[in-house]
Amino acid sequence: MGFAADTAVHAEGDGRYTAEIRNGWDIASNANGGYLLSMVARAMRDASGRPDPVSVTGHFLAPGHPGPAEVLTEVVKQGRTLATVTASLETADRRLVQAIGAFGDLSTSSGPELVEAAPPALPPPGECVAVVATDTFPPPFMGRVDLRLHPEDAGFADGTPSGRLRVRGWFRLRDGEPIDTVALVLAVDAFPPTVFNARLPVAWTPTVELTAHVRARPSPGWLRCAFTTRFVTGGFLEEDGVLWDDTGTLVAQSRQLALIPRG
Amino acid sequence: MGFAADTAVHAEGDGRYTAEIRNGWDIASNANGGYLLSMVARAMRDASGRPDPVSVTGHFLAPGHPGPAEVLTEVVKQGRTLATVTASLETADRRLVQAIGAFGDLSTSSGPELVEAAPPALPPPGECVAVVATDTFPPPFMGRVDLRLHPEDAGFADGTPSGRLRVRGWFRLRDGEPIDTVALVLAVDAFPPTVFNARLPVAWTPTVELTAHVRARPSPGWLRCAFTTRFVTGGFLEEDGVLWDDTGTLVAQSRQLALIPRG
Repeated sequence: MGFAADTAVHAEGDGRYTAEIRNGWDIASNANGGYLLSMVARAMRDASGRPDPVSVTGHFLAPGHPGPAEVLTEVVKQGRTLATVTASLETADRRLVQAIGAFGDLSTSSGPELVEAAPPALPPPGECVAVVATDTFPPPFMGRVDLRLHPEDAGFADGTPSGRLRVRGWFRLRDGEPIDTVALVLAVDAFPPTVFNARLPVAWTPTVELTAHVRARPSPGWLRCAFTTRFVTGGFLEEDGVLWDDTGTLVAQSRQLALIPRG
Repeated sequence: MGFAADTAVHAEGDGRYTAEIRNGWDIASNANGGYLLSMVARAMRDASGRPDPVSVTGHFLAPGHPGPAEVLTEVVKQGRTLATVTASLETADRRLVQAIGAFGDLSTSSGPELVEAAPPALPPPGECVAVVATDTFPPPFMGRVDLRLHPEDAGFADGTPSGRLRVRGWFRLRDGEPIDTVALVLAVDAFPPTVFNARLPVAWTPTVELTAHVRARPSPGWLRCAFTTRFVTGGFLEEDGVLWDDTGTLVAQSRQLALIPRG
């Protein structure tokens, strides 16, 4: 199955959607946060009646595991440019994600353009480090996405972290599945944590909150992605993502706040 | 009245809080977004039973004007480290803000520290450009906060914008009122928009979404603040804020997505 099929939602009326958390999207036995949030975004998008997520925020309350789930949505505003929607992702016994988002039509946008940044310089995908799923490490999730890391940022995997809180690389879905604006919500949370490149005793960083701003519909092909962290303080860190399509257009920005578990 | 009094909320039971949008916090006749969101955050914080906002996201649905309002909160998770709360700010006839946040205790945080950025270099407050409220421009809001802009970033006010999408400056509340972690939610939206320093025909930028991450309780004194925009594209722009206290500690990060009105 592909990304679209594995995040499908079925409208049941009154803003309620049934869904299924699928096998294979997990990291350390928990479904990837971007996978869960893109499922939520798909339901919110349907409820909004607009084609594109523009801003999506999710708070992660409990880990997700394969099985049936539902997304409960409420449209809180239908505006001229944007619709605002709240949602929760729930299983029979717990709430996994609480979300809010704004949805619109990114095919019609216009206005002044000023871009004060450039896509990250990356060697071609074939010269980057492919992240390959195994039964142990990397996790099964890496079998569902095709990540190629900048060689300078891939040292953490063999015990030689760069010391810089940065991960750059290419992203695409498997089997040539196109990346739409919902898949960008997956892409912003798909890369290994920047903190893996720090020389710190941090093995995992559960996401508290993730906000993705979708800035354009991607052209076909690879995404160029860069994730950076500037502040590891007080038991938290942020991770900022900037995603560009193959034509050099900014397609998404993200920030997540993550916890650094104690001990 | 000061900030704390003008954002006071009164618990009415079942997660409902009554409040009053006060005069004087408006810009172009609409209450400042950070002012409204800090009122919401105050109610959410009370509902959470935790002392500090850690991450607060607000979507701005309709402009606020002086008068009675209420905040309807729901605690969706009481965790060990954080409580997650949703909320809406409503008046008799419309919903103004829809919010979600995580609340915790920033007095007890610990863990590894890595800071890959420095506070902005600013001349002393007395050598910066004070933003003074008048009946016309700057707006009344500027009478409630004490902003001192870096002279290089203050040219927009007299028609000589720097051309760089950046606004740096000092922030404090009036009359020596201390800045607590709720006031940081005000501070992240208090400065003139970065786009005022662009040579673009953009007079205002309504906020779609604002996320503030509070990283530490501020020490007494001025805050050092820097706001930057990297991407004006497709009818939207983001504005990123980094706020430091007087001892050089990072206290908050923010990002907002704003619309560039057409025409």
